[in-house]
Amino acid sequence: MDKVDEDDVVNPWEVATSSATGVDYDKLIKRFGSTKIDDALLQRIEKVTGKPVHHLLRRGKFFSQRDMHIILDLYEQKKPFYLYTGRGPSSDSMHMGHLIPFIFTKWLQDTFDVPLVIQLTDDEKYLWKDLTLEQANHMAFENAKDIIACGFDIEKTFIFSDLDFISNSPAFYRNMCRVQKLVTYNQVKGIFGFGDSDCIGKISFPAIQASPSFSSSFPEIFNGRSDIPCLIPCAIDQDPYFRMTRDVAPRMNCLKPALIHSTFFPALQGAQTKMSASDPTSSIFVTDSDKQIKDKINKYAFSGGGATVEEHKEKGGNCDVDVSFQYLTFFMEDDDRLEEIRKTYTSGELLTGFLKKELVEILQKLVGEHRQRRASLTDDVVKQFMTPRKLKFDYPP
Amino acid sequence: MDKVDEDDVVNPWEVATSSATGVDYDKLIKRFGSTKIDDALLQRIEKVTGKPVHHLLRRGKFFSQRDMHIILDLYEQKKPFYLYTGRGPSSDSMHMGHLIPFIFTKWLQDTFDVPLVIQLTDDEKYLWKDLTLEQANHMAFENAKDIIACGFDIEKTFIFSDLDFISNSPAFYRNMCRVQKLVTYNQVKGIFGFGDSDCIGKISFPAIQASPSFSSSFPEIFNGRSDIPCLIPCAIDQDPYFRMTRDVAPRMNCLKPALIHSTFFPALQGAQTKMSASDPTSSIFVTDSDKQIKDKINKYAFSGGGATVEEHKEKGGNCDVDVSFQYLTFFMEDDDRLEEIRKTYTSGELLTGFLKKELVEILQKLVGEHRQRRASLTDDVVKQFMTPRKLKFDYPP
Repeated sequence: MDKVDEDDVVNPWEVATSSATGVDYDKLIKRFGSTKIDDALLQRIEKVTGKPVHHLLRRGKFFSQRDMHIILDLYEQKKPFYLYTGRGPSSDSMHMGHLIPFIFTKWLQDTFDVPLVIQLTDDEKYLWKDLTLEQANHMAFENAKDIIACGFDIEKTFIFSDLDFISNSPAFYRNMCRVQKLVTYNQVKGIFGFGDSDCIGKISFPAIQASPSFSSSFPEIFNGRSDIPCLIPCAIDQDPYFRMTRDVAPRMNCLKPALIHSTFFPALQGAQTKMSASDPTSSIFVTDSDKQIKDKINKYAFSGGGATVEEHKEKGGNCDVDVSFQYLTFFMEDDDRLEEIRKTYTSGELLTGFLKKELVEILQKLVGEHRQRRASLTDDVVKQFMTPRKLKFDYPP
Repeated sequence: MDKVDEDDVVNPWEVATSSATGVDYDKLIKRFGSTKIDDALLQRIEKVTGKPVHHLLRRGKFFSQRDMHIILDLYEQKKPFYLYTGRGPSSDSMHMGHLIPFIFTKWLQDTFDVPLVIQLTDDEKYLWKDLTLEQANHMAFENAKDIIACGFDIEKTFIFSDLDFISNSPAFYRNMCRVQKLVTYNQVKGIFGFGDSDCIGKISFPAIQASPSFSSSFPEIFNGRSDIPCLIPCAIDQDPYFRMTRDVAPRMNCLKPALIHSTFFPALQGAQTKMSASDPTSSIFVTDSDKQIKDKINKYAFSGGGATVEEHKEKGGNCDVDVSFQYLTFFMEDDDRLEEIRKTYTSGELLTGFLKKELVEILQKLVGEHRQRRASLTDDVVKQFMTPRKLKFDYPP
């Protein structure tokens, strides 16, 4: 239909769009072959859990899925499943976009009362970036702190660095080998766009991200059970890994993991700009001070408002491209207040300055609480999270 | 020069020649870029060790090398080095050809008094063959018994299965990752002939065979030292792995491994026939009974003698294609006796039957002693050999 959307690039290493309103997610669902999350699914989640769905689900931030109905069937039957998510450590601190999957994963953990494994792919970062193994591994440990500060339950959460865990886990390594035997170079070339001058580490890496999808990779955690299904909350750019995983799973006599996909979090400068951990002006970091948050939002957050107060009052603001409003849709929990802001900003009644002020307050509170939780974390607690051990199940085994 | 030799195929998974006298090793040295072992090197080995060289060296069975002079320099300076060899387990028992590198490695260990690591690439066999991980791993354990029965010193020898060791060794796994980052698909395609429909496990496997070349892969064994040079005795078909290893070593700040290469051991049916662990008539196995040895040599060992006694007496035998004679060059220690046999067989004086009888006696003794040593091995001893631990060094650290 339009050329712009045809140009969206979405893969695990690059997300790029030339549209100010961001990636065309409906087209992406078609391209990836996943299923859109519809009202019926949201209602079913509320019915089986007896709780309202998270605002990130309500507002379509998590918008796509594979086999969620199977997971809900299991939950209804009081049968166990587990959550798996991950992160490629990229610098010593994480930005708000990095937190989205973890905020939602925590809600899933709390709501469904299930165990969670979190993979830190320090090996991936080592292979893709100009880093030493030690640097990548250090970043994994620092990122683990940011993840733990999201509030995960220590009795139900295992966080691991690939570099540390794989070389201490025969079961995980064997599943890696199984996947590596079933996937050809042609396949990873087609799925990930690898080329002949890529290193052999990159070419075999997808097997490493696939392996946590199988409970048999974690015998210490799941009591040796290989039949516990997995639900993976992640940003949609990670879907190629799990399309591959779902393809090989039946040939390994394993269950296909279910998925729930999020949209991307925009850079302060707008959806067309790449958010980067190495550019401090492109986002709010979990380590930013109150003043930094205020200054960044006021200075860099792309405005959909008029160029002057008069123009804004006359023509109104455009919420679809206004980054401050978009951030509010991720972080403001109160639906009524958000709708009021949307209406009054669109009409021109609410000025950009007030909108930004509201966002600054919410982010200062969120980041402040996160900062506090992170500061109170001891290395010992981090090590506990990162020690393979039996996780608490509330369902009968 | 001649078409026949141009057709020699030599790579880690296939050795094939259409010449009855076997692969043209001089051409192979040129193609691989290694150095022929000359008399000067043999004399130097005898000089620095004060012992006669092994008959496999004297007779050109180990015929090619890389950097052997560096190893001898170290030995003269009383500086340490270690040996690394390996085996891809292929069935529950090994044949005589499999034993050659181990017989020679034992001599190197005894003569230079150095530690030795032996890699069993059960992961490779899993990736290349129609086997489960459990089957490949079991074969590794069974093969370890045959290797130990060659008489290695338990205080100086560590034997490991990749599947068991890699997932228990952070240092080894990290070196694997380092190699995987430095080698591209293009390179393994060029070196090993991998194709686009090969699985990603095969494509990244060369990094696994490379890693034992670095002492930093074994901190438990070498007391954390990363500067201990390595000498690899192996059949020349394994050289491609170590050309790759020597290429990446400097970029890893690691020492290049030195190498000493053997020729191939012919099948009973002759150098043109592929010896196969799955074909019991193609070789003598270490599990064969005295009767099986006798019957196989008499029935299958390709003869270079005349078709009739009269013809043989008239024209003489051809030692170059006679498999029994070739086997004697590998296993008969007495040079004078071997030379006498060569002369009298060539002249036609010695009949094929007598030649075979001599070989049968030697093999029955060798295999009998091996069988006895293997039978006396307990699983506990095998486990000791396979436990990572500090190996005994006689040199000051």
